This record gives sequence, C-alpha cells and structure tokens, in this order.
Amino acid sequence: MQLLKDRIRKDGKVKEGNVLKVDSFLNHQMDVKLFREIGKEFKRRFEGEEINKILTIEASGIGIACIVAEVFDVPVVFAKKTQTKNIAGDVYTTKVESFTHGRVYDIIVAKEFLGKGDKVLLIDDFMANGKALEGLAQLVEDSGAELVGAGIVIEKGFQPGGDILRKRTHLESLAIVESMDEKTGEIVFRDDE
Amino acid sequence: MQLLKDRIRKDGKVKEGNVLKVDSFLNHQMDVKLFREIGKEFKRRFEGEEINKILTIEASGIGIACIVAEVFDVPVVFAKKTQTKNIAGDVYTTKVESFTHGRVYDIIVAKEFLGKGDKVLLIDDFMANGKALEGLAQLVEDSGAELVGAGIVIEKGFQPGGDILRKRTHLESLAIVESMDEKTGEIVFRDDE
Repeated sequence: MQLLKDRIRKDGKVKEGNVLKVDSFLNHQMDVKLFREIGKEFKRRFEGEEINKILTIEASGIGIACIVAEVFDVPVVFAKKTQTKNIAGDVYTTKVESFTHGRVYDIIVAKEFLGKGDKVLLIDDFMANGKALEGLAQLVEDSGAELVGAGIVIEKGFQPGGDILRKRTHLESLAIVESMDEKTGEIVFRDDE
Repeated sequence: MQLLKDRIRKDGKVKEGNVLKVDSFLNHQMDVKLFREIGKEFKRRFEGEEINKILTIEASGIGIACIVAEVFDVPVVFAKKTQTKNIAGDVYTTKVESFTHGRVYDIIVAKEFLGKGDKVLLIDDFMANGKALEGLAQLVEDSGAELVGAGIVIEKGFQPGGDILRKRTHLESLAIVESMDEKTGEIVFRDDE
C-alpha cells in the first residue's frame, strides 16, 4: 500500500535493534484518516471472503480494528492481555510469548463472543515474530470459529512471523519491511525495486 | 442518549457490587455502528467548541476514541498504562489509582504528541471514581495544551467522578446510571422520570 509506505518513510523512525517507531501515526498518536484508507485496502484484499467478525488484541490494535470493522460492517472483539491467575468466567485462553517485553502473558476472549458461525479476520498493527497473531489464531481455532485471514499493517519481513502465519491462513500485510538502516534511516520494503 | 440507554437496558448485565457489564457491545465486543452514533452525539454536544485532538487511555477507550475522532476529523492520542519504573524518552506522566484493580499505575503520553496549541477532548468508555479521567486532565494541563472537555459513554452517577470532573471542565456523559438493582436487573438513568 503505497500511501502507507510513503508515510512510514516520512514519519517512521529507525532505531537501534531493528526497531521501527511509528508512534506518530499508528500506535500512540493515531491518524484515523489513514486508518480509514487501511480499512478500504483490507476490504479490497479480502474481497469475496465472507467475514462477520474482526478479532484483535489490546491495546494498539484496537483503533485500527474498529475503523477496519466499520468498512467491513462487522463487530470487533479484542483479546485481553492478563497476568492474572484467576481468570473470571468462561473464556478461551492461550499463552503468548512477548520478545519485546521478555515475558509470557495470557490472552483471553470471553466464550460468548467467539464461536461456531463466526468467520474471523484477525487485525493487528504490527507483526514481527507473530506470537500474538498465532495466539489469536489459536483462540479462533479453540472456539470453533473459522479463521478467514489476517490483516497486518506493518510486517517485519526479516522476522519469522509472516512465514509462519502464511502457512496457516490468508495473510495480507500492507507494508513488509525487508530491511532498515539505523544509520541512514533507510527502509527497504519487500516489493520495492 | 436514548439509543445508548436502550442498548444498556437490553444488553447490559447488573452484577454484584454495582458492576455494570456492557462487554457485549462496549468494551470487549465492540459495536462500531453504535460507536459511530456515539461520535455524532458527542459532536452535537460539543458543537461550537474548537477541538483538534482527542485523548483517551488504553485499552477499551481506544476504539470509541478512534471512531469519535473520525466524526471530529482529528487525530487520537492514547495514554499508556505502565508499571515500568524506567519510562523511556520524553513523556508526561502522572499516577492513577484504580479502585477496580486495587493498585496505582502510571499513565504516560509522549511529549511530542501533546502540547501548546492542542485543544483536547478527553474520551473514555466508563467513569466511576474518575481517577483515569483526572489523570488525563492532569497530563493535558502539564503539557500546556487546552482541556476543552470530556466525553464519557457511561457515567456511574452514584460515584464521585462526574461531580469532580464537572468542576474542572465541560463534561458530557451519554448515559448516567443513577442506580442499579442486581436482583431485578433494573437500571435507573439520571434523566429518567
């Protein structure tokens, strides 16, 4: 998606350790006009697929998921992250390893909001190792719902998440970062010449 | 807002300890069509006010804030909750006491996304004791931005948050719960007869 790649090149900041900061428009300050264009692009890429629910994970996925959901005209469910041992009520849960934060946490979705008959599109802002997305896919599977696909705004193509998730479902990433140079700030996208 | 009150009466569940569960449409599963109507209602209630940024707090405020922001045609910033001692970079921060979770946490906003010239509307899904909202108001004040008002979807009118925040800014709550009965499930709203 050219508009997104242009925006990443303009406002993204490449930091040490292959960190791409896009918090001026994606995951701290949020440009909802861009989100609307992202929603339209996902709609185009999943044209013809039957989707009746969007599943995301707190926190930064929620904003994008809600605006994408408006374009798809479906409700959103967001999985909650918890370190609580006593998870109240009837929930699906799985463990997710976070490389960024160096810990394992549980993600949960109430059973009443995910189940048979749901045709689910996963939406998230970022994918690197893909552990959060794998966790969401697992919740969908456990619930008996159908996993239709996954839409990611920015994929770090040099980390393994994308390849793993592509084997499992129809993955669409709107910008795949192939490499970044923290000295020059240069960002190479996968489909660039 | 009648549409919202009807929905709370239809799908809200009154639980022990004055808990109102609205997670089927507001803060776990999210009805984005309702959010759009909520956005239009806030736009009507803040008509004539100059607003160029919406500030909310993770996680469940983000979805509503993004759709409200589309109606206002402004960007969103969400404050992050953290228990990290080492807050990286240049941020505004304040402490918030959570009665629900029985702990104190820090909320932060990067300085580059809030400051002089910003005319800020706070948006959140719920207000009871109002500590999160007070924290957001404090961040706005610390940053030199102007606090224009606060829009809350559901206010628990029998808890002190609303009265405190009304002294500080223009507060609009779309549904103010005056009392709830966990035995009958009855909910009384403030402007009901």
